[in-house]
This record gives sequence, structure tokens and C-alpha cells, in this order.
Amino acid sequence: MSLAADYNIALVGCGTVGSGVARLLLEHPERLASRAGRRLRLCRVVVRDPAKPRAAAVPPELVTTDFEAVLRDPRIDVAVEVVGGTDWARRAVLDLLAAGKDVVTANKALLALHGAEVFAAARRHGRAIGFEASVGGGIPIIAALTQGLAANQILSLQGILNGTCNFILTGMTERGTSYASALADAQRLGYAEADPTLDVDGTDAAHKLAILAQIAFGVAVPFAAIPRRGIAQIDQADIRYARELGYTIKLLAEAWYDPNDGRLALHVAPVMLRHLAPLALVRDAYNALFVVGDAVGSTLYYGRGAGQMPTASAVVADLIDLAIGRGQLTFRSLELWSDQAQTVSLRPPGTVPSRFYLRLLVEDRPGVLAEIARILAHHQISISSVIQHEAVDGPDGDVVPLVILTHQAPTGNFLATLAELNGLSCVTAPSVYYHVAD
Amino acid sequence: MSLAADYNIALVGCGTVGSGVARLLLEHPERLASRAGRRLRLCRVVVRDPAKPRAAAVPPELVTTDFEAVLRDPRIDVAVEVVGGTDWARRAVLDLLAAGKDVVTANKALLALHGAEVFAAARRHGRAIGFEASVGGGIPIIAALTQGLAANQILSLQGILNGTCNFILTGMTERGTSYASALADAQRLGYAEADPTLDVDGTDAAHKLAILAQIAFGVAVPFAAIPRRGIAQIDQADIRYARELGYTIKLLAEAWYDPNDGRLALHVAPVMLRHLAPLALVRDAYNALFVVGDAVGSTLYYGRGAGQMPTASAVVADLIDLAIGRGQLTFRSLELWSDQAQTVSLRPPGTVPSRFYLRLLVEDRPGVLAEIARILAHHQISISSVIQHEAVDGPDGDVVPLVILTHQAPTGNFLATLAELNGLSCVTAPSVYYHVAD
Repeated sequence: MSLAADYNIALVGCGTVGSGVARLLLEHPERLASRAGRRLRLCRVVVRDPAKPRAAAVPPELVTTDFEAVLRDPRIDVAVEVVGGTDWARRAVLDLLAAGKDVVTANKALLALHGAEVFAAARRHGRAIGFEASVGGGIPIIAALTQGLAANQILSLQGILNGTCNFILTGMTERGTSYASALADAQRLGYAEADPTLDVDGTDAAHKLAILAQIAFGVAVPFAAIPRRGIAQIDQADIRYARELGYTIKLLAEAWYDPNDGRLALHVAPVMLRHLAPLALVRDAYNALFVVGDAVGSTLYYGRGAGQMPTASAVVADLIDLAIGRGQLTFRSLELWSDQAQTVSLRPPGTVPSRFYLRLLVEDRPGVLAEIARILAHHQISISSVIQHEAVDGPDGDVVPLVILTHQAPTGNFLATLAELNGLSCVTAPSVYYHVAD
Repeated sequence: MSLAADYNIALVGCGTVGSGVARLLLEHPERLASRAGRRLRLCRVVVRDPAKPRAAAVPPELVTTDFEAVLRDPRIDVAVEVVGGTDWARRAVLDLLAAGKDVVTANKALLALHGAEVFAAARRHGRAIGFEASVGGGIPIIAALTQGLAANQILSLQGILNGTCNFILTGMTERGTSYASALADAQRLGYAEADPTLDVDGTDAAHKLAILAQIAFGVAVPFAAIPRRGIAQIDQADIRYARELGYTIKLLAEAWYDPNDGRLALHVAPVMLRHLAPLALVRDAYNALFVVGDAVGSTLYYGRGAGQMPTASAVVADLIDLAIGRGQLTFRSLELWSDQAQTVSLRPPGTVPSRFYLRLLVEDRPGVLAEIARILAHHQISISSVIQHEAVDGPDGDVVPLVILTHQAPTGNFLATLAELNGLSCVTAPSVYYHVAD
């Protein structure tokens, strides 16, 4: 294959991921040229502080603080946005598209919150956006949904999309540590930020779910409409009861589409999965997405969902796609965040059926189980298993944990029942609940 | 998006997979048109016996026995080859390419044996070949390797690529059945052919490995150069010993590339995997491919590797790719089976290091273990575990099974040692061995 003109790249941001992209581009030029049919040339690296030491050996003459120069440089074909955040990054991406540059981004918050605007701008300017790195790090999840499974109606997605949470939950499950101690381990090993809020409260996973829902179901989900719970409140006791019942707790981003009524249910929540379910076996900082399509059946994609080189792998795959001209075709073929008539509507969360795990602290006296069972029955919630161990001696006095697994019930119905249970005098502390996968 | 001209398709063959492709095309025209940007129109269905009843409701006026009419019809853009076999199919694909048609094929034997010829013909005629369905059924494995991981040097592939074998081994492992009985179950449930030879002897998995090796490492492996063992000889005793040692036996297609010396090792063989290794957890007729890339690290792709609709899902994904124009770009960007200088060479199988499982039937008398251990030590083969249970009372007299796990040793060295052990008078039957994953 004879090589066409160079494909000229500007890197906007050169932190962890940006340095990884620079490393791939600078260390493997022949490999990338043979796969793209042309040379991928790193032309400029825009940074805030050029004096900051960088992992990759970026030639100093490429480094600049002048973002505008990228906009003005007609040679530059594509810009890689890896600054993160949603304010400056949004403006920068809109300016790049207006200046005639294609854009590759790893910024899930940007796409989840401003995807409609950004994709409309790309279409208006005849540009393309590559965003494989925004979900699942190096795992080609976006390509699987948009290309590999293009013949399918996707019926459901279930993902472990936040490596920090999965690392913490793996520690709590396998080493029996508390949440606080597992979080400290994750921070020490670089799997969690100093302020881990956006990871552990489910925001990051919900950003990714918003992107996947758009791709898989063609629905622009307002980010605030995704119910989400994080993992910070998970007690070691619940991990242990889950194990006793044959389950493992994972933070899942889930979406289910019902082709009969065109409605989509979705949430981010800790979910109890059966021990041998494929997603239950995903350990440490790995990510995985379980996808069911109407033709293909069940499929799963697994790998590192974050980190320098895995994310850079996805960014550079997008660059190769655009250098070949394939990325532009893919972007045009997707009606992403467009204003086309939506045929999919969101299902009110309260109507979504689920099984539930319920842990109550109750007084250790006759009649308590009967009363609780009566209230559940009254609300048509059927019990699948019960665990009651012997009384806990301690400051709480004669109090015992009572653990119940339910059969399926509408979420709203369950939550109303839970409120009623918490109001009972025999229930001595707010009850704990989690979703249970079928 | 306004729709471009129809994309006109001929189906060559209408058995299980062909009927599935027809179903998707005929039952979901709007879905496919919205994803391809144009209507995918089924124009002709070439069959040998038009009277044969078919699952899909193919309009009778499309059915023909006249393959030449497809070649002559200038409207037809692409032909889907799903007849299977390598003689007629090879001729048909070459004729289709010469007639100016792109080709989508699910035929792994054709590509493994005649890939060089077929791909060269496509390039000569300026046509493209889509072959996602040839490996891993509906799992987008080919796209992951050629596009999603394009920034990587692939370092290793390990796949469960034959659903029949995996179904049989799952039955033997989980239900404790014999090989013969598990095979009969597979045949009764439609997971194995009446003549299962090409599945159970590893030929089918080796065909797929040849295709993957070409894509991942750019090396055209002569099919006969792939060492392969099947599963028909696997004894229930070895399944049980594997479990006792913490392992599960799977038929794997494996390839390892050493970037330092440019050499590739590959084989198809039953391999003992640790119980919780990702591939050990792949059950029944599912397939999975574990891929390690130098940037992305470990990734895994999982789903149904065969069957009507999963395979049709991959075929129609290729049709959408070609209708968009993306498939042509992908095909051109791959130097598949081309005569470019090969930089990768095959490693002689005898030099490939592996751990081994060894089961000997030995006389139950003093000094036997010492003699065997001495011979292994003499050949520099280090023992990692030993199991020797009590003597078997029975027709064999005082004979005991002796099970040994070794540390890594060159395969040729191990096989030579095995021959020496089998020649000992205290070894009463030919010894059994399997590879053990690290």
C-alpha cells in the first residue's frame, strides 16, 4: 500500500492519557502508518504549563500553550481532546469543529452533558467525532455497539464501567476489608483520585451509561434522569450476606429496552449478581459490558476500563479510523444526539420490576418476622429467601439482623413498603436494600 | 439522513445461516436501512434444491438455482457465500469477485485453506471481502482485532473457538459424563453434527486460528503447520484430576508472539486452565477470545460462536459495513494474505515452552516414583505437584495412576521424556498428557 499524505494530529492536553497517546504516536510510527495507510504525525501538543515534566518524550518544539494556533493551523486534520472537564473542553471542542478539525475525545462527562450540542456542531460543520475512549477504556465497546452488532436491536446492557468502584468492591469481597480501607488501598495504588466522589457516587458510570444508551437505543437521556446510587454506603455485612446467599455485589450501569412498548429503563446501582454470572467474575479495576441483542444473543466485552495505555489504545484506534476515512462514515451513519423523532421513551423508575435484598435490624422478640412478612405480603412482595442469625450481643441490645431476598416487585412498590417497614417500632435502624439480578 | 440507492444482495446458499440472514433482511428492513443509510435489498437466493422447505419466508420469486445469473446481474452489489465447503465455494467466490461483486463469507475453511488466493483475487478486482462471521459467530472478533485494537501489537490470542467441543467438555466437567455420552447430548441438542470429526479433532478451531493469526500477526500460516490435538481422547479421569489440582480442561486455539525475535508460536490443544481464569468460565456452546495487546493489556470477547441468528448477525454487520463503504476501507487497509515481506516466522513447535499435566499408570511397588522423578530431573523437567491415590483394585492388578504437574519445559524436551517414561517396564499403559496454562 502506498502511503497517502500525513495525517496531522494536535493533542489538546497532555496529562496521563495524553502522554499515552503521544507515546504510541512517537514510539510506533511504522506500525501505525501501516495500519492507517498514512503516517500519523503529532504536530502540536497544547498544555497549560509547558514546564511541567511529562512521562512521554514529547519533543519540546511541539509543546505550546497556544490553543488558538491549533485552530488557525490548516495542516492539522484532527485534535485529540484529553483535558477533561466540561467547561473549557466544551468550548474547545466546539471551536475545533468550527475550525474544520475532526475531534477524538475520551471525555465522557462532556458527551453525557453536552453531547447533543457537540454532535450537532460536528454535523453542521461536516466533521466527525471519535469517542471510543469515553467508555470502557481500551475495550472497543462503542465499535461493538455501532458496527459489530449493527444488525441487532439491543435488548439490554449491563456494565461494570467504573474500575475504581470495582476495585474497591473486589477488595471488600475477597479480602473482607471495610469500604474505607478498600478505598484507601485504591488511592494508594492509583485506582482512585484523592477526591473519589464522582467515581464512588455512580456519576462516572452514569455518564458512560448515558453515552451507551444514546448509541444502543438512540435515546438522548437527560443525565439527571438516570437514577443512581453509589457504593460508599455498602457495609461489609451486606457483602457477607450476599456471599452466604450465593451473590456478589457489583456496581452496575444497566439499561433494558422493551421492544413491545418502546420503553427504556436504566439506572446505576449496586446489584447482587449470582457468583458465577459473567459480570460477577470481573475483578479489580477491570471493566466489562454484557450486551444482549435480538439476533446475536448474549455477548460480553472485557478489559481495562481506564489507565494510560488502555485509554490511549482507544484514542489511537479512533485516529486510525479517521485517517482511513472510516471514522467519518461511522459518525455520519449514527444519528447520535440528533433531533430525529425519538421513538424510545424512558420508563418511570418506580415501575421497573426488580428483585431486592433487604436487611433490617429488628428487635429479637416473637412476632417480628410475622409482622414484616405480613406487610410484604400485603404489598404483594413475595419472599424468596430469609436469613436470620442469632442475636448480636452488644450496645444495640437484643437486636438481630434479618435478611430477606424478594421475588420481582415494582421498584416504587418496594420502596413504599420499605418506608412502611422502617416506620415499625420493631425495626431499630433504617433498613438497607440492594437490587438483585434475576 | 436521506437514503442512497438500494444495496442489492444475493444470497448464495440458504441453509441454517443463509436462512438467518434472509430473516434479518426481510423482517427488519427499516432497522437495517437506518443503520446502513440505504435499503439492504435481498435480490436473489441461489439454492441447489428450490423445493427444499426453508425456515425463513423467502419469497419464491427470489429463489433460483442459477448461480450464473448472479454473476451476470449488474444490479447486484454483494454476494453472501454461505454454502460452506472449499471446492465449489472457492470457485464461486473467485467468480463473484471477477464479476465485480463484493463478497461476505462465513466460510472459515475456505479462508484458512485458500485465503491467499481469494484475497489476492479481491485486490486484483478492486473488491472487498467481509468475513466477520468466519470466526466467533456473532462476536465482533475480527473487527476488534483489525479496528478496535489497531494501535496495538498483539502479543497473544487464546480462544475457545469451537462451541461443540466446549459444550462437550462442559458436560464432562459439570455432569461427570463420559466423552461419548457428552457427544451424544451435543448431537441430540444440535450442537454437534452427525459426523463431528472436524469439530472434535480441532480442525475447525485450527481453521479459525489460521484466520486470526493472519489478522493479528500478518502471517499466512500454512494450515498444516498448526499443531493440533482434539478432545475425543479426553478421559473423565483427567477432568477429575484437573479439578482436584484446581484446573478446568478447555480446547484452546492459542498464539503467542515474541516481539523480541519476531517469532510466533501457535497450536490447538486441550489445555488445563485455572478454575477462575476468564476462559475457564466460558460454558456450553459459548465462544470467547482472550487477546493481549501491548497498549490495551488483556481484553476478552464472549458470545455465541455459532448458530443461525448469531452468525447471521455478523454477516449482516458486514453487509451494513459494505453498504456504508466502511467495509471496503477496512479491507483495503488490511494487508491480508498479501505477498508483502513476512517479518513474522513460525517458531518450531518443539521449542515452545509449556507446563504439562502427565498421568501415568504405574506398577504399585517401591521405587517407581523415584525412577520417574529421576528421569524428569535428568531432562531438566521440574515437578510442580504430584497426586498419587491408592491402588486401583481391578483387572489391571496392582496398578496406580500417578499424576504430575510440571513447571515450564520445552515441548520437544517434554515429549522426548514422555517417550522414555512410556518405555519403562513400570509404566503399564501409554501415558496421558495435556498442556497447562501458566
